Formats: sequence, C-alpha cells, structure tokens
Amino acid sequence: MLQKKLTRIKQARETAKPLPGGIAPLTSSNDFKSQSVDSKPAAKILDHHFSTVAGNLTVSYLKAAQTDQQHPDLITLGTARPSPQYSPWQTIQTSCLSSDFYDPLTPPSLHLTTQPCVQGENAYDLALAMNYGHSTGSPQVLRFLTEHMELLHDPPYRDWEVCLTCGTTSGLEIALRLLCNPGDTLLAEMYTYTGAIACARSQGVHVLGLEMDEEGIVPSDLDRKLSEWDTVARGPKPHVLYTIPTAQNPTGVTQSVERRKAIYEVAEKHDLFVLEDDPYFYLPLSEREASGGCSSDEGREHSVDGSDLEGYLAELPCSYLSLDTSGRVLRLDSASKILAPGLRTGWVTGSSQVIKKFTALTEVGALCPSGPSQVMLYKLLDETWGHEGFLRWLMNLAREYGRRRNVLIRAMREHMPEKWCRWRVPDVGMFVWVEVDVSDMCGRKPVDKHSLWEQHLEVEEAIFEQARDNGVLVSRGSWFTSDVTKLHRVAFRLTLAAAPVERIDIAAKRFANAIWTVISRIKNRSLQ
Amino acid sequence: MLQKKLTRIKQARETAKPLPGGIAPLTSSNDFKSQSVDSKPAAKILDHHFSTVAGNLTVSYLKAAQTDQQHPDLITLGTARPSPQYSPWQTIQTSCLSSDFYDPLTPPSLHLTTQPCVQGENAYDLALAMNYGHSTGSPQVLRFLTEHMELLHDPPYRDWEVCLTCGTTSGLEIALRLLCNPGDTLLAEMYTYTGAIACARSQGVHVLGLEMDEEGIVPSDLDRKLSEWDTVARGPKPHVLYTIPTAQNPTGVTQSVERRKAIYEVAEKHDLFVLEDDPYFYLPLSEREASGGCSSDEGREHSVDGSDLEGYLAELPCSYLSLDTSGRVLRLDSASKILAPGLRTGWVTGSSQVIKKFTALTEVGALCPSGPSQVMLYKLLDETWGHEGFLRWLMNLAREYGRRRNVLIRAMREHMPEKWCRWRVPDVGMFVWVEVDVSDMCGRKPVDKHSLWEQHLEVEEAIFEQARDNGVLVSRGSWFTSDVTKLHRVAFRLTLAAAPVERIDIAAKRFANAIWTVISRIKNRSLQ
Repeated sequence: MLQKKLTRIKQARETAKPLPGGIAPLTSSNDFKSQSVDSKPAAKILDHHFSTVAGNLTVSYLKAAQTDQQHPDLITLGTARPSPQYSPWQTIQTSCLSSDFYDPLTPPSLHLTTQPCVQGENAYDLALAMNYGHSTGSPQVLRFLTEHMELLHDPPYRDWEVCLTCGTTSGLEIALRLLCNPGDTLLAEMYTYTGAIACARSQGVHVLGLEMDEEGIVPSDLDRKLSEWDTVARGPKPHVLYTIPTAQNPTGVTQSVERRKAIYEVAEKHDLFVLEDDPYFYLPLSEREASGGCSSDEGREHSVDGSDLEGYLAELPCSYLSLDTSGRVLRLDSASKILAPGLRTGWVTGSSQVIKKFTALTEVGALCPSGPSQVMLYKLLDETWGHEGFLRWLMNLAREYGRRRNVLIRAMREHMPEKWCRWRVPDVGMFVWVEVDVSDMCGRKPVDKHSLWEQHLEVEEAIFEQARDNGVLVSRGSWFTSDVTKLHRVAFRLTLAAAPVERIDIAAKRFANAIWTVISRIKNRSLQ
Repeated sequence: MLQKKLTRIKQARETAKPLPGGIAPLTSSNDFKSQSVDSKPAAKILDHHFSTVAGNLTVSYLKAAQTDQQHPDLITLGTARPSPQYSPWQTIQTSCLSSDFYDPLTPPSLHLTTQPCVQGENAYDLALAMNYGHSTGSPQVLRFLTEHMELLHDPPYRDWEVCLTCGTTSGLEIALRLLCNPGDTLLAEMYTYTGAIACARSQGVHVLGLEMDEEGIVPSDLDRKLSEWDTVARGPKPHVLYTIPTAQNPTGVTQSVERRKAIYEVAEKHDLFVLEDDPYFYLPLSEREASGGCSSDEGREHSVDGSDLEGYLAELPCSYLSLDTSGRVLRLDSASKILAPGLRTGWVTGSSQVIKKFTALTEVGALCPSGPSQVMLYKLLDETWGHEGFLRWLMNLAREYGRRRNVLIRAMREHMPEKWCRWRVPDVGMFVWVEVDVSDMCGRKPVDKHSLWEQHLEVEEAIFEQARDNGVLVSRGSWFTSDVTKLHRVAFRLTLAAAPVERIDIAAKRFANAIWTVISRIKNRSLQ
C-alpha cells in the first residue's frame, strides 16, 4: 500500500515540469498534488469566517510584478533583492543521523550522512535560499510536504494547499488574527496549550474551555454551549474551535475516531471553523511496550522492515483534515517535536481560501521561514531520507518515546502515592497528566475562608514548589486553563521528552516525595 | 578611536561572567552593555503609547518556571523541550567570504573560511541552537549586537536593550501592534516602504503621508499636521512616526543631522514615538566615486587599512537612536541588505519598556529567529570576523554599491531623456528615484475627463509596462504611496542592488527607451 503510493509520487515527479527558479518564486501546493484530487468536490465558501484583519489584506504589487516575467531576458531594477554575490555564505554543509539512528549495534558516527548546499547548485541553490523567499515556502520544501500530506491525510476535497510557517505558535497567531476579531470567543479544551491561551488573549480574544472526558472534548457540551449561547451577554457566538486532538497538551488524551467524527458533526451543525493543532500526531507509543516490567534498553531490539512501517502508519490517528469534507479545518503541523524546535518551522494545511489569506498576512510579517532552516529540511527530508526514510525516522522516534513512557510509568507506579494520585498511561505523545485528589482534605472541610479553587491552587503551588526544591520541575495544571476559578482539581503535567532517560526514575521519585510531603503537611494542619 | 573602543569591548568580555547556558536561557542586553551607561538618565515612561494588544500581554509561566533553576541538580519533567539526542542534525558547517572579499587580486576560493558548529561544543552548542530559544535571541548573538550598537550608536539614556527579530517587516508588524490600535493614524514619509503600508493597513491603521523635500520629511509640515489635527473628524491624534531616515525607500533621500534634530524636536513637542527603520544605514556611497567618468572596475583598487575604516565610520549617518535622550525611538536594523535576506533576522533597539513588550509579543508568535540563522550569524560575526571584520565587510559592501551606483548613474546620464527626467545621485543606499515630468502633456490640457492623478497613474503604468516589454523591471512610484489620489508626479524607483553589474547599462537604456516611447505616444495623442 505504502510502496504503491511512494511509487506514484516518484512517477509524478518524473513527469512534472521543473521546480520554479529565481528569487522568491511563486509556488503553490497545486503544482505538487496528484491528479486524483480533481475528482473531489470543492471546499465550501469561508468568507463569513474571516476577521477584519483578513479583510484588510492587500496584494503586494512589487511581488506580483516580479513574478510576472514575460520578457525572456528581463533585468531587474525593481525589487531591492541584493545580488547573491554579496551574501557572505558560499556553502552550508550539515551532517545528520540516518533514519535508522536508534540501532544500538551501530556506532553513531556510522549513522552520519552529510548534506552540502552550495551557491549555484541545481537542487537548492544556496544563493536563492539566502535571498528573499516566497511566503508559502520554497518549492523544494513545499513539494515534499504537499506529497507527505497527501500520503498521510488525503483531504476529501479538491482545493487544499500547504503553507510553511515559522512554527506552530506563529501559525496559530496568524490563523487567529485571520479568523477572530477582538471580543470574539475561541472554543478550546478546558485545559490547553498555554501558548494558545496567551496568543488569543494578546489579541483580545476570550478562550472558553470545553468539558473533557477520557476521550477529550465532550461533543454534547460543545453542542450545548453553542446552542444556548447568549450573544447579548457574551458577545458574538463562537465560530472557531481550537483543538489538540492527539496526545492533548497537557492532558495527554487522544480523541478516538468516533469522537472526532462526533465533534466534526457539531462543527458542521454550528458552522464552526476548526483549528487542528497536532504536534504529537507522529508519536503513537505502541501497546506492546506499554505493559510489563522492562529494562531501560527495551524497545531497542526492533528489527525494521516494511511491515513495521505499515504497522506504524496504521497506528497514526485519523486527522480532522482527513475527515474534512467541507474545508473547514486548518491543520497545524510542527517540526518542533519530530525534528528540531530550533528550525522554527512548521506547516499548515487547509482550504485555499484560508491559505491565500495566511500567505498574505505572512507577507506583512516574517515573510517566510529562515532560508537555512528550509535548506536543512529539504536536504534531510527530500535528498537524504526521502518519504520512506522520514516515516522510518518518525516510527523510530515514536518507539524511543514509547521506551521513555515505559520508564516514567514504571517509576510512577513504584513511587507515587496511589491513594491520592490518578494518571492514565498515555498511548500517544509525551505527556502524563497526574491528578492529585485532595477532596478529603480541602472540599468538604475548608481549612480557611478561601473558596475551593483557591485551596486547589494553594495545594498545587505547594506541591510544585516542594518538587522544585526536591530537584524536579513539573508543570502546574492551572497554567493550562483559561479560567482558574473553574479549577476543580489539583493536577500536573509531566513530560517524558526532556529529561535524560536514566534520570527519569529519580525525577519521578522526587515528585512523588513532594506530594507525600505536602499531603502530610495539609493533614497535620487539618488535624490541628 | 575605534581601536580604543574595540579594546574596551575585549576587556569587558574577559572579565564578564560566562554566557548563560541551557535551553532558551533568559538573556538581555543588560548583561553586555558597558558600565558607562550607568551614568546616563533613564528613559521616559512610555505607558501611554502602548496599544490594547500591548496591555493584553501576560507572562509565560512555563518559561518563568524553567529559568528559575535554584536546585543544583534540577531534572525537568516540565517544559516539553525534546532531548537533543532526537535532533537529527549533529553538525552544521558553513563556508564564508572573508571581510576583504572584494579584493580582485585574490581568487575567491582563498577568501573562504569555514565555521563548524557541533552538538556539545562550548561556543554555541548546536544541540541548544536546534532547541527552543529565548525571544530576545541567543546570548551569543545578542552579546555581539549589543556591543555593536553601543559601538556605533551609544544611545544617550541608560535603559536601552536589543532584541532580535525575524526580519524588519516582522519587527515592524510587532512594533505597530504594540503601539497602534485599529483606527489610529501612522505618520510616514509621503512615499514609503510598501511593506510598512500593507502592514499598517492589515491592522486597520491609517497611513498619513508627510511632505518631503531634498532632505526628507519637512518638519514644519509634521508640526502643522499635528497641531491642526482634528480628532473629531480624523480619530485619535497620531502618536507614532515611521521614518526611513537614510537612503529612504523609495526616494533615496537621506536626512541631514540638522533635519533629524529638527524632526526629533517636533517628536518631543508632540510626544511622538519614532520608529526608525534604517536598513541602508551601512551603505554610504563615498563622494569620490560618485563624480567623474569611470570604468566598471573602479573602486576596486582601494587599499584597506585602519584609517579607511575610521573614514567609513565617519561617513555613517547620525541615527535617531543616538539622538534619543527620551527613549522614544525604536530602531529597526536588518541583516537583509548587508548579509542575507534569507536569514530572516534583524534586530530592534530601544527602551527596555518597549523591548519587554516586544519580547512578550514575539513569544506568542514566531518565538525567536531560526536557530541555524543565529548560529550562522554568531559563527561569522563573532567567531570569524569580529567587530572590526564586520565593519570592514560593511565598508567594502558600501564601496561595491558605490561602484554600482556609478555605473547606473553613468548609464542614466547617457540614455535618459534629460528634458523630461529628473533624478538625484544618491549618496547612500541602493535607490535612484526618477521623476518624469509630464506636466506639459497632462496637467494643463487634460486629454480626457480623468483627474490629474489618474492621468499620472496612466502614464506611470504605460512606462512601467513598456519598460517590462523592453526587458527591464522597475518599481512604480504609486506603489509606495498610501494615498494614490495625492499623486502629483510620475516617478519610478530604480535599484542598483539586484542586476548583474555588467547589465545595468543595458537595463537603463531599456528603461530610457520606454520613457521615450510613451512620451512620443502621448505627444501624438495630444496633437491629434
């Protein structure tokens, strides 16, 4: 199945016209999509979703003129793009891990391949990469990502496009500015990415938290909130839903396919636009590794073959983009959790109507992602790994995270005070969400005049600080909520991504000790 | 003088504490400024200049917690920053021109030096560069730029800081969002950078063009517009001035020191905040080369020694930042015209009050410039060239542009129809502004029912299109104006930066021919 698709991509490239050249060449996903999209219906009209800012956007005359190169021998005295001879950088060379990097039997040095990029080369002329670029991204990178998105998501409508971003937070900021006016309300999970909350707030957009259960957003709550919306009291009815459907930040919850379909149905009913922020999509932590006692080297003995890759692909969640018959989803992908945050790149995929506005707003901001970052992406993904190698890298990374997840969960099972703590073993991503049940101690018998949420906040803070004093940093649940007065539990987010794997056990122990300490402190106070 | 300052920087570094390490370390210009700033007065309070967006900004708890590392052995289960072992890039190596690149006697290959950056190195650990970064920029790059700014501008108040940007347009977008609300009016040169106009418009900010003469903005016009401002008819009185003081885009005009002081005085009187956008600051085109006939190799026979560098520094304009006793200027510098646009980096310098807000808004957007771009800047500017080498590069670049300017001006003198065309020889930067006087043909005797500005626009378009058909791209004057109905001349911007130098003559000829063609076409029509 995969091989067939990869062959189709290869064949399409062979018959395609060459990539556009020149400085900041006009480029679009439409040049790189397969012909099969032509038979699909077009996206619905989205005009009524756009903000005042989106309406203010105008065309760049200079850039339009530059790309309109009819004369075969056009000399430019037009746009102020410096001649490449004045760029001090003549070559960039990177060395990278192979996509099978995890194999413990091969010394790391043997996994290194080098990727040079030089001024004047055909594949990705460094002189062009170091000049101004087009806001959708360079043709080299955009082609790969368009093919990749069609391979994995194949949106069920015709006119979708991809556009590079300067990272997901930047992409989210642009999307919110295009969709929301100040005073609007953004719907989001009750606990959500702090960057999304801060970003919305900076724009004067309120964030309304939705009820969550074991599978994430509760569709009936979403429907009820929208059906009963009081525009007089609360301003315009929300029309944008921001969701992290996979390994949700911070709760680690992954929406099932059925749940996603139910939420999409509510979105159709109430004409919601959906921002699908999915940085953990590629990190399913396979079942086999989750259970049982295991050494810290477990998961390293995988053999890699084609069937493994098919199995990995089958484990990937079903995205909103791939369910989106109307073109109401903008999907945000990030390179940060799968390649490197320092690249400051990601990509968005959605209806051409949104991507055109997205590109126009990018043009009056960062213009485009860094040229060196784009070169590194192209040289690694396209020239070195290829589509299959990239998928293999992602699969191996997911396995590494699976191993880390196992280490953390085993440590938690050993150290955490079972009586007061609850957590779910995550099956995707990098977060474990821990709830500390203090209802015995707070709740029923207030120790002081504070309301319940203030007591929760106080306990949360005490545990956080005690943990830090013990030498472990965790994230406080209240940081992830847009309305702290609705806080009805004490919770923490643990990530398995950052710490050295051999220190995860001691970190968990330190955190557990902090909980023990604070709980006995509260109990003593309650008894006094 | 220069050597003394450079020695002082060197000494300060030797006694300074080491650069902060770790992922996204908190860093600030205050760590890198010389002690001489302590004796200066503080900036004035700017609170009343900030927009609603600026007021909405909040602190990032996660980042605050991360940097608050008291425990000597802190393990993080907190922020979701991937472990460096999962970054595929192990090394980056660039090769660059030396700062004496222009020397025609040495083959280019001998000018190349290489700069490696590897995971785990001391100077700029690639593992850190490829992880999340701090919004002000990395300490390595911020230190160099802070020193550089103090060396060249030495702001006359104490609490100034530098912050990296993802390019000047991005910096400008952020600054405008911090300073202007929708409905506000931004003051700017009558003709100005199209990106600034588009950026302001996207935010619902009006742009009001100021009168210009041979030295740029006319201070009396600025004062009059502000004194006579009618808030009822036109909304809030403008409080932000956007100016390109050096080699203005598109007119090429450079404000004299006296003119800058006069404008700053008006800014003080009306409490204006000044956005100083100065990408052409480093490109004075020395007088000697401007005059006289010369071969296309002129300017290549310079000998480079210390006195040359002192002479170059003396030619650099006096910035608003260096005149700014109140702290009401935010200066925008760009790497695009002096190093490479593809880096997508620049930097802003101004009062801490603005830089703090700037950093906070960056944090809910692009987060920080690309890591690879920052590594390349550090390795080139700090490790390879040093401050003196960087200045030498800039001096040589300015000379190269001087040579190009001479070629273009000579070609224009030869080809352009003198009777109808006027232009000033630019003494800084990369633009020649050409006005085509069609008052004989339009103006007095309207050929049709169109108003004067519509006639001008028509002639402008005809010349632009004829030029393009002839094989040369120029920029239309009307693209650079916020109010096309005020257009009272036909003008074009020519840039000397982009075309191969040996093709500049033919390009000018093609443009001249286009003007001849259109003028005779109009004359024939007028006669009919």
